[in-house]
Amino acid sequence: MAQFTVVFMPFDKTVVVEAGTTLLEASVKAGITIESVCGGDGICGRCKMIVRRGRVGGVVTPHLTREEIRQGVVLACQTTVESDLLVEIHGETRAKGKITIDEDAQRFRADRPWIAGREFTKTPIVSKVLLRMSAPSLADNLADYQRLRTLIQKRTGISSMQAGLKVIRRVSETLRHNDYTVTAVVGYRRGVAEIMDIEGGDTSARNFLAVIDIGTATIVAHLVDAVTAKTLGAQACFNSQAPYGREVTARIIAAEKQGIDTLQALLVDDINRLTAALAAECNVSLKDITAVVCAGNTVMMHFLLGLPPGQIRRSPYVPVTVDPPPLRAAEVGIRINPRGLLFAVPGISGWVGGDIAAGILATGLSEMDGVGMMIDVGTNGEIVIGNRDWLMACSAAAGPALEGAGTECGMMAQRGAIEKVSLAGDRIEYEVVGGGPPEGICGSGIIDLMAVMLARKAIDRTGRLIEGSAPEVRFEEGRRRFVLVDKQNTRQGREICMYQEDIDNVITAKAAIFAATKILLDRLSMSFADIDKLMIAGGFGSYINLESAIAIGLIPDLPVSTITYVGNTSIYGAKLAALSDEAREILYGLVKRTTYYDLMGTDDYVDQFQQAMFLPHTNIELFPSALRPRAGSHGAS
Amino acid sequence: MAQFTVVFMPFDKTVVVEAGTTLLEASVKAGITIESVCGGDGICGRCKMIVRRGRVGGVVTPHLTREEIRQGVVLACQTTVESDLLVEIHGETRAKGKITIDEDAQRFRADRPWIAGREFTKTPIVSKVLLRMSAPSLADNLADYQRLRTLIQKRTGISSMQAGLKVIRRVSETLRHNDYTVTAVVGYRRGVAEIMDIEGGDTSARNFLAVIDIGTATIVAHLVDAVTAKTLGAQACFNSQAPYGREVTARIIAAEKQGIDTLQALLVDDINRLTAALAAECNVSLKDITAVVCAGNTVMMHFLLGLPPGQIRRSPYVPVTVDPPPLRAAEVGIRINPRGLLFAVPGISGWVGGDIAAGILATGLSEMDGVGMMIDVGTNGEIVIGNRDWLMACSAAAGPALEGAGTECGMMAQRGAIEKVSLAGDRIEYEVVGGGPPEGICGSGIIDLMAVMLARKAIDRTGRLIEGSAPEVRFEEGRRRFVLVDKQNTRQGREICMYQEDIDNVITAKAAIFAATKILLDRLSMSFADIDKLMIAGGFGSYINLESAIAIGLIPDLPVSTITYVGNTSIYGAKLAALSDEAREILYGLVKRTTYYDLMGTDDYVDQFQQAMFLPHTNIELFPSALRPRAGSHGAS
Repeated sequence: MAQFTVVFMPFDKTVVVEAGTTLLEASVKAGITIESVCGGDGICGRCKMIVRRGRVGGVVTPHLTREEIRQGVVLACQTTVESDLLVEIHGETRAKGKITIDEDAQRFRADRPWIAGREFTKTPIVSKVLLRMSAPSLADNLADYQRLRTLIQKRTGISSMQAGLKVIRRVSETLRHNDYTVTAVVGYRRGVAEIMDIEGGDTSARNFLAVIDIGTATIVAHLVDAVTAKTLGAQACFNSQAPYGREVTARIIAAEKQGIDTLQALLVDDINRLTAALAAECNVSLKDITAVVCAGNTVMMHFLLGLPPGQIRRSPYVPVTVDPPPLRAAEVGIRINPRGLLFAVPGISGWVGGDIAAGILATGLSEMDGVGMMIDVGTNGEIVIGNRDWLMACSAAAGPALEGAGTECGMMAQRGAIEKVSLAGDRIEYEVVGGGPPEGICGSGIIDLMAVMLARKAIDRTGRLIEGSAPEVRFEEGRRRFVLVDKQNTRQGREICMYQEDIDNVITAKAAIFAATKILLDRLSMSFADIDKLMIAGGFGSYINLESAIAIGLIPDLPVSTITYVGNTSIYGAKLAALSDEAREILYGLVKRTTYYDLMGTDDYVDQFQQAMFLPHTNIELFPSALRPRAGSHGAS
Repeated sequence: MAQFTVVFMPFDKTVVVEAGTTLLEASVKAGITIESVCGGDGICGRCKMIVRRGRVGGVVTPHLTREEIRQGVVLACQTTVESDLLVEIHGETRAKGKITIDEDAQRFRADRPWIAGREFTKTPIVSKVLLRMSAPSLADNLADYQRLRTLIQKRTGISSMQAGLKVIRRVSETLRHNDYTVTAVVGYRRGVAEIMDIEGGDTSARNFLAVIDIGTATIVAHLVDAVTAKTLGAQACFNSQAPYGREVTARIIAAEKQGIDTLQALLVDDINRLTAALAAECNVSLKDITAVVCAGNTVMMHFLLGLPPGQIRRSPYVPVTVDPPPLRAAEVGIRINPRGLLFAVPGISGWVGGDIAAGILATGLSEMDGVGMMIDVGTNGEIVIGNRDWLMACSAAAGPALEGAGTECGMMAQRGAIEKVSLAGDRIEYEVVGGGPPEGICGSGIIDLMAVMLARKAIDRTGRLIEGSAPEVRFEEGRRRFVLVDKQNTRQGREICMYQEDIDNVITAKAAIFAATKILLDRLSMSFADIDKLMIAGGFGSYINLESAIAIGLIPDLPVSTITYVGNTSIYGAKLAALSDEAREILYGLVKRTTYYDLMGTDDYVDQFQQAMFLPHTNIELFPSALRPRAGSHGAS
């Protein structure tokens, strides 16, 4: 196949690619980070480039204005290389500092590790045990390592104790150079402990854990002090794998085509950047981070560990493992203490991963008396129902629209994001994270805006924008949209709006999730009324308006007192697992007894999905509150 | 310091060394293997070289004839480099094929693994578990690794099961490429099992273990079929560390000076050569050797694992560890299955190692009702006394004279070695391993010859050769010796004799061992008569004449019915540990309850040692049989 040279300006980076490669792929190959968040599906319209010289292929996209098309602007993900090219990338297209480093990153912090409303034993997955020993004598000349091990066994109460050769090799010298006062770094796996390292002197006060929620769209990292159990800082970034696909299936296919290494490296780099930023922010040495505890869906875990994910997308959807053993973090390239552990929260199946297991743990669902339901809104929406006696889970592909990725003006819930939208009479009001002019809109804002558009009748019940219904509905430049903020009022002079495609993506996402919820209940011969407690989880930042979510039919129409927004339960649960042996044991128990119900094998999913494509639903009786007059503003409810 | 160039002919190998380096060190650096067995102490006289050009330092040695000195012959270990040199090494000086590859290697085989007279459960340290699984389905779509692990847990009865990332990464592919029939290679450590590898198809019949006794002077290796528990072959070689010292202390000092790597590499190379030779001989692929089980003294174990041994020679004699964890053999450079295990038999203290623990296990000493004593004759002599209720052990530096190393005509008990010497009336008779003309004399032959010289009054009770006492006593060339075989009757035209220095070395060795035995009994307020069973262990090959050993005072003068020669108990015990979980548990128990008694801390050791420097002993009442007329030949007793 013909090969062509692409030069990217102003970087002056050159790559050679095969004919037909997209410009987005070429730019990734050139090491240029692009603000694409939709995974190359032509949805987010972020990857604009200007072709200065050469011939490209591709179709006209509604994301571009006529003026842009005249200037040679293309969407890189929709444009293929057909000759040698000279391409210019504007600053706006280039990804900003990947990591949320301003104070608003604290919105991802959500420091409520004991969310389940109970206390757990405080036994971190890696502990530091201070040992003050006396020097050996002829009367007490046990081998150095045996003395040490016996003491650690006594102090930890764990008899099965391992250590690697590298640690044992240094024991004698470390003891003698530190007057027999040393700190043992002890890692725990089930029933077995590992002496990971012996540090000279008393280092027991400096023991930190990185806890990470690996989402398909977003990665959130917390730095936790293992001694005090306090969260010291939080950082988040979009998952850098996005150019390989919005959803996990596309990324699996990419990995099958070109090997898993690239996708693994992107994930590991994200984690390393987040961890390094947290360490710098909190003045913690990477050496003192002794473990990384990750929760993520099963495919993300496969990428992280370099496990071939191919079978997960093929019936009968068998992952390599849902319970990887604790590893050394360095084995996958994560940079913390060189002997630090990597613990992946165990999952339930190929499509219900450790993030959901962590959620069940964090919400206390597995210990409930009544019937609880957890809906985790992410790129995959997962639903779990059950209590202390039984648990059932399913998964539905929603796409990242509700996370702020996959809509053209979407962003994470960080400084500059519109996080609330409401109606004050006829006027639309909004709140911006950190105040000041807005830059984009995050998941909670999008849900509000959908409800507002519906209340204003700017969209009909299929989500179609109605021309002339409101001054915000505009059709200029051939692109149908609802303008929330005009460009003169935004931080970057770019209007903040919802395009028709964005609205459709949100409806698809909420329909997928609601259909899954409905089917799970049907299978159990239950109705929404049987749910004693509904918990909405997801990485929207710190906030979601439940009435808005009900209004658009994302979540069932239950009394608001029954519903709790529980936030990012994946990271709460991972934190519990990081800090408590008891929590880890509960985890192992709950993943065993949660039944996975596979929607792909059901006859009625398509039908239920179609019914849910209406706002809030085709069967309006499921949403009695939609029949009542709406207050208009959630603040007034 | 001045540096000089040394050229070794006929190899034409050149090295640059500092002034004052010995020629032996220079030749080791040049990678030339020399037949030195005394550790550079100027005792064995094996390292003869001819200095053709240049100036050397050093003293005149009794090992050289006047004719040799005229020709420029020197002992490499006693000669230093003082200018650029041209040195010639004769074939006789160069080490022969290091490994005993003739059929007589079977003398090291000693295939009596159940020496303790009881049966053990057959649970090898690495087992191969055949798994025939059915393909997953929607009704049974557990993750591949979880299915596998659950099955292995069920089959082995072990719930704590680990596996490395490399193994897990390949699980899915291996299952699907082999129609779900695979063989799990499972390694055991205490209470925890490791899935070391998953092999496609049924490989369960091919599982082999290398069992190795690492002595200071000699290394013996057996290849064992883990399925049938049969020993398939045996090989042995002298320990290549010998040029760094006959005894462990000298080697520790060498390691402290130049780092441990060289000494570790020599040991690992020996093991690799022995293992490769066994694999070739038995037609076994190295890949199918799934574990190496080693027993050796604590210093040898430190060298093998690369642990700094320095503290073992300094009061209070603290080793790094006497119970190293099971490792991957590849971690120290041993070439078997790349994921194969290395299990070191646990030891008792810095001076009583895993070889002795293995011996206690193999002899059944730790399960005895009466009082048993085991004397292990090696470069270190170790004595253990006790029974099912108590065990006490000590160690004495003997030197390698009794192993055939460290005497000028000494050799291993392999083809060509004189292994028995006896008197038929006035005539001295001898037996040669494999028949034909002899090449040297091994440990059992040396003990016999000492007894014969004493009976013939060729030596007095201090071991001094008496001029004119017998035609074999000769004083030509200024070297006092007892000639056993004239050079025209030997394989290599080199007479086989005992020099006065050799005799002195043997007496020192036996005195050290006997003194230790005596002190241990004294401390327990016991006498030799209290011993119900005396077991003599050591790598003499298959044979030792007990009456000769008593006659020279090496072992106590007990009724011969009380004494058993039990051979190389180190390798028997290691084999038990390799093949049986039950044996491993007994081992862990006995090392814990064996008390180490340190002779270096006693006041009376020097006195007891001096008394034992007589043949058989200063206090002749300890050896009543020496007062009775001797039959002269053990055959007639």
